[in-house]
Amino acid sequence: MVKKNIIIAVIGGSQPDEESLKIAEQVGKLIAERQAILITGGMGGIMLAASKGAHEANGLVIGVLPGSDRNEANKYVDIPIVTGVGEARNSIITRTCDCAIAINGSYGTLSEIAYCMIYKKPVIGINTWKIDAPIIEAKTAQEAVEYALKKVRT
Amino acid sequence: MVKKNIIIAVIGGSQPDEESLKIAEQVGKLIAERQAILITGGMGGIMLAASKGAHEANGLVIGVLPGSDRNEANKYVDIPIVTGVGEARNSIITRTCDCAIAINGSYGTLSEIAYCMIYKKPVIGINTWKIDAPIIEAKTAQEAVEYALKKVRT
Amino acid sequence: MVKKNIIIAVIGGSQPDEESLKIAEQVGKLIAERQAILITGGMGGIMLAASKGAHEANGLVIGVLPGSDRNEANKYVDIPIVTGVGEARNSIITRTCDCAIAINGSYGTLSEIAYCMIYKKPVIGINTWKIDAPIIEAKTAQEAVEYALKKVRT
Amino acid sequence: MVKKNIIIAVIGGSQPDEESLKIAEQVGKLIAERQAILITGGMGGIMLAASKGAHEANGLVIGVLPGSDRNEANKYVDIPIVTGVGEARNSIITRTCDCAIAINGSYGTLSEIAYCMIYKKPVIGINTWKIDAPIIEAKTAQEAVEYALKKVRT
Repeated sequence: MVKKNIIIAVIGGSQPDEESLKIAEQVGKLIAERQAILITGGMGGIMLAASKGAHEANGLVIGVLPGSDRNEANKYVDIPIVTGVGEARNSIITRTCDCAIAINGSYGTLSEIAYCMIYKKPVIGINTWKIDAPIIEAKTAQEAVEYALKKVRT
Repeated sequence: MVKKNIIIAVIGGSQPDEESLKIAEQVGKLIAERQAILITGGMGGIMLAASKGAHEANGLVIGVLPGSDRNEANKYVDIPIVTGVGEARNSIITRTCDCAIAINGSYGTLSEIAYCMIYKKPVIGINTWKIDAPIIEAKTAQEAVEYALKKVRT
Repeated sequence: MVKKNIIIAVIGGSQPDEESLKIAEQVGKLIAERQAILITGGMGGIMLAASKGAHEANGLVIGVLPGSDRNEANKYVDIPIVTGVGEARNSIITRTCDCAIAINGSYGTLSEIAYCMIYKKPVIGINTWKIDAPIIEAKTAQEAVEYALKKVRT
Repeated sequence: MVKKNIIIAVIGGSQPDEESLKIAEQVGKLIAERQAILITGGMGGIMLAASKGAHEANGLVIGVLPGSDRNEANKYVDIPIVTGVGEARNSIITRTCDCAIAINGSYGTLSEIAYCMIYKKPVIGINTWKIDAPIIEAKTAQEAVEYALKKVRT
C-alpha cells in the first residue's frame, strides 16, 4: 500500500484539447510510478486522464468531488472524497497536495493556481494560464513530474 | 433599510498601495450612494477601505470572514458572516454578489476573479490582474461603479 | 439601518407542524422589534415563517443558503448569502449568530444545535430535540426571545 | 492496494474514556481486516485509536482534518485531507463514508450523527448519544463492524 507518500495534484479543465489529455494521462502514470499519490477534482477531462494514467500504473487516486454523489467520480478514482461544497473544494485539493501540476485548464484551474500561491504550494504548468505568478513551466509530462518531485523534496 | 438590493463585491488585497486604497474607499461610498449593498472579505486593506467608504455614506456592509472570530472583521462591517472555512470563503463572496469590482489585489483576489468567471458574475477591474478573461477595465471609482450597475441591470 | 446589532438565529425544519410555524413567525417578529438581526438557513418551513415575522416587523433578515441559486431564498430574506456548500452551511449560521432559537426541527436542526454547543452559542429550544445538552427551554415565542436577549447581553 | 472499497467512518470525541479508546482501536483493526477503508476526522482520541488499529492491521486510513496543517493529523493517518474548513469538515466525512460507527463522543460526534441522518448513512453506536434517531446499537467492536458491513452491503 502507498503510505506516507507525496501527494501531487493534477489540475486542469474538463474540456481540454487532445494533446493535453495525452500529457495528463502520462503525468498520472509517472506520478504513480514514482510512488506518489495523485489527487484531482475527480471529474472528467484532465482529471479523468490523469486518474486513468495513475490507475493503470497501479497508483492511488484521490478524487475530491464538488457534488454530493460519489458516483460522479470518474471510474479511476480509488478514494472519492465527497465534499458537497461545490467549487470551494478547489481550496481543499490545493491545501492537501504537496505540489500541483496544471495542464491546460479554464477558470477552475485558475482558482486552483491562485489557491496554490496562497498556500505556498509549487505549481508546475504545462500549456496553462500565463499569469504574473511563479509557475514553473514544463514542456513534457516527464519534465513536469521531475520538477514536481524536486520541488517537494527540497 | 436597504432591501432586495443589488449586492456588489469589492475584492482586493490586504496590502495595497495608497492610490488603490483611495479608490476603494470611493468605490464603497458610491456603492452605498447608489443604494447597493457592499460585500467584501471583511478584513483589512482594500476590504477595509471600501467598507469605510460605504459605511460613511450610510450603506450596508457585509463582511464574509475566513476565520471563526467575529472581531476579526474591520470596524465598518455591519453584518459579519463568520464562515470558519478559510479562503474557501472566496467562493461564497463571489456566489453571493451580483457583480465584483477588483481593485489591485494579490492571489486571493485572483481566486475571486476566477470564481466570478465560473459563476458568470461580471468583474470590473481597476489596476488589477491582467489575465485572459473578460474583465471590464475601469480607470476611476466612478467608472467602476457605473459599469457594475449597468452590468447588473442588463 | 440596523447596525452593530445582535444576530439571532432561528433554526428549525422545513416541514414543521402548524403550531411551530406560528411560534416561528412570532419569534421573527419579536427579534425584529427588539432591533436584532435574524439569521436563518433561508429556505422554507420554520425558516420562512421566522423570516416573514421579522420582515413584516421591518427587521433585517439574512438567509444563509445551502445551494448556489439566490432565488431559492424565501421571499422574506433581505440578504441571501449564497454559500454553495450544502448542509455545511449549518456551521456558518451557527458561527455567525450570537444565540439560536430552535423550534421543532429535524436532523438539520440537530446538527445546528450540535454546532452551537461546539461554538459555545446559547440555544433556546421550543418543542425541539431532547438531548443531553444545555438547551434552555422556552414555552412561548416571547419567552424564547427574552431568554435569547438575556443570554447575549450577559 | 485497497481499491473500490467500502469506506467506514469512525466518529467520536477527542477526550473519551479508556474503555471507548480500546473499542475504537479494535473497530479500526476489524475495519482494516475486512478490507474496508477507515475515514475519521484525523485528530486525537477516538480518531487516533481507530486509526492506530487500522494502521497496525495494514489498512488504509483517511483523516479529514479541520485545520490547514497536515501535521495536525495523528501519526496513523495515511491520507490527510487538509480541508481548512473547520468543523464544517464533519459534513465531508459523513458524505464520504458508506456507514459510520459512533463511539462515545461529544458535540462534534452529535453533529456527525445528525449529518449521517441527513445523508441517509447508517450509524452504528457504541456507548454514544441517546437521541431520537435510528442508531443501531452495538455492544462490542465486533458487533459494530458486523452491523456496519451488513448495512453497507444491503
